[in-house]
Amino acid sequence: MSIKQEELEEIYAFAVQLGKDAGAILLERAQERFDGSKQAEQGHIEKVNAVDLVTQTDEDVEAFIKSKITKQYPSHKFIGEETYSRGVSRDYLIDDEPTWCIDPLDGTVNYMHLFPMFCVSIGFIVNGKPVIGVIHAPFLNQLFSSCSGKGAWLNESQKMPLTRNPTPPLPPNAPSGCVFSCEWGKDRRDQPDSNLHRKVESFFNMASEIGGREGKGGMVHGVRSLGSATLDLAYVAMGAFDIWWEGGCWEWDVAAGIAILKEAGGLITTANPPADPATAAIEEVKLGSRLYLAIRPAGPSANETGRQSQERTVREVWRRVRHLDYSRPGV
Amino acid sequence: MSIKQEELEEIYAFAVQLGKDAGAILLERAQERFDGSKQAEQGHIEKVNAVDLVTQTDEDVEAFIKSKITKQYPSHKFIGEETYSRGVSRDYLIDDEPTWCIDPLDGTVNYMHLFPMFCVSIGFIVNGKPVIGVIHAPFLNQLFSSCSGKGAWLNESQKMPLTRNPTPPLPPNAPSGCVFSCEWGKDRRDQPDSNLHRKVESFFNMASEIGGREGKGGMVHGVRSLGSATLDLAYVAMGAFDIWWEGGCWEWDVAAGIAILKEAGGLITTANPPADPATAAIEEVKLGSRLYLAIRPAGPSANETGRQSQERTVREVWRRVRHLDYSRPGV
Repeated sequence: MSIKQEELEEIYAFAVQLGKDAGAILLERAQERFDGSKQAEQGHIEKVNAVDLVTQTDEDVEAFIKSKITKQYPSHKFIGEETYSRGVSRDYLIDDEPTWCIDPLDGTVNYMHLFPMFCVSIGFIVNGKPVIGVIHAPFLNQLFSSCSGKGAWLNESQKMPLTRNPTPPLPPNAPSGCVFSCEWGKDRRDQPDSNLHRKVESFFNMASEIGGREGKGGMVHGVRSLGSATLDLAYVAMGAFDIWWEGGCWEWDVAAGIAILKEAGGLITTANPPADPATAAIEEVKLGSRLYLAIRPAGPSANETGRQSQERTVREVWRRVRHLDYSRPGV
Repeated sequence: MSIKQEELEEIYAFAVQLGKDAGAILLERAQERFDGSKQAEQGHIEKVNAVDLVTQTDEDVEAFIKSKITKQYPSHKFIGEETYSRGVSRDYLIDDEPTWCIDPLDGTVNYMHLFPMFCVSIGFIVNGKPVIGVIHAPFLNQLFSSCSGKGAWLNESQKMPLTRNPTPPLPPNAPSGCVFSCEWGKDRRDQPDSNLHRKVESFFNMASEIGGREGKGGMVHGVRSLGSATLDLAYVAMGAFDIWWEGGCWEWDVAAGIAILKEAGGLITTANPPADPATAAIEEVKLGSRLYLAIRPAGPSANETGRQSQERTVREVWRRVRHLDYSRPGV
């Protein structure tokens, strides 16, 4: 299945407008709660536990997006977080057909508490590859967007990464000097070797002084947790975060962000270290793998290409992190 | 020393304008780096280690703020991060005189990486109490401000906390249901019982499932780390974060945020649990203590006042966190 560049650019313009309109609905619904008339959003459904909440806004915004897409592009497939989650299967549904992959509200916990780090995420996928991405965080006044061959943009005016001509390489002693983005997530089991234990050990390694943690101390410049996988990816594409490492997301959390990151020049591969982290081939991430390690765009230094400094950083992260256990049927 | 309300409101208007102007300089300097002409800020000085950087912008913005204040209010005292840090003493310098307490750039690491969570922080203190606060995060388009008796505001138009009439109480099973804000900080020593070890253990307790961590599991709704103590406090005042727990900040990091939080109806006390966390009196924080636990504004429920739900939450946090070790001379 192929789509001509001219048609792709039309779809891009449609997606940007859709992101603006959907974000406006999110903000309007948030503002309705400011005056106290709806201070605790009613009717949310508990999915897994108290951390995992679905709001009515989620469903309404997804229905809005789906109706717009179905009308404009009736032949395209549509996968949304809400419609998917109501199904029985957890199969990976993306094939070679043109497919929209949507999260109507990423950062649901932030949204419920009115912390500004929430957004709508709209990805468009052809032949299994995200080629258009639109992320709109309306309470931050930030719109991130990209289309294959057209660059990645903040607010349609500032090219990403923000620092260019040249974009700096990753630091020579990365992960030292890097801003490391990670999320505590929803899996809070305290059993030995639970994902929470593996994550905390990994975060601790990345943060600790050089020489600490039995040689795994990474002395990153800062550790950040925003509570939105989608915005984490957007800030890696922007160049603000150097490294994002996470497990447990779904394709609608990352489709738009991967499109934007790739178009900006970033690298994304698996979070889980291979048996030979120092030498293994660094493969393109599988969209449905639920395991992601993203590295910001990078330019060359005197003795490395940008890609070489990204790959070096991937290996240094792999050396410090644990395997995470997030499986799905059929993958 | 007392200041009449009318004079205080004049000082407030001056402080808001100063925050707007200083924030505009920060953003302008950041944008100069977008085009690549200054992509790595030159001339930064290493203070303690690679994490602790001072930029030229820091010093220039502090000089700008100090010159404006000295001209307008020559009798007022001035304490700024940069002027203080160049001195030898680490004494606490705030007394009963009218004093400006300034951080020209909080979130320095974020600023260097162009992550939007950076701000200027301007506090005005009388009789040792912060009475005016202005925090401007120009890349987020967010200005937080307050003056005793005049309320706390986002962008001068939205009263804080954002959720009011009524503001909800803290959750009945807090910290479960709460957004917990914390920072990894600059002290990354890996020795047993280092601050980093104590912090990670505390974060882990707060995040873990109920029943986990030998009964200390708090199952908070989310864990967030922004890399700016000042913005952490602003978001607690807004009601977006329920709990902020941190050690190691200085008074210029928190003076403006404490003014805003208090005016919004929040509570702030010490991060370090007393010997009897279940029954100890909950005392107002000492501005120079370097140990802070902030709880968002809260309204009453059927069986508690807002203050009671805040104090209950303080005790539940104290039960789950370790003592931190940040000392200073004379305190």
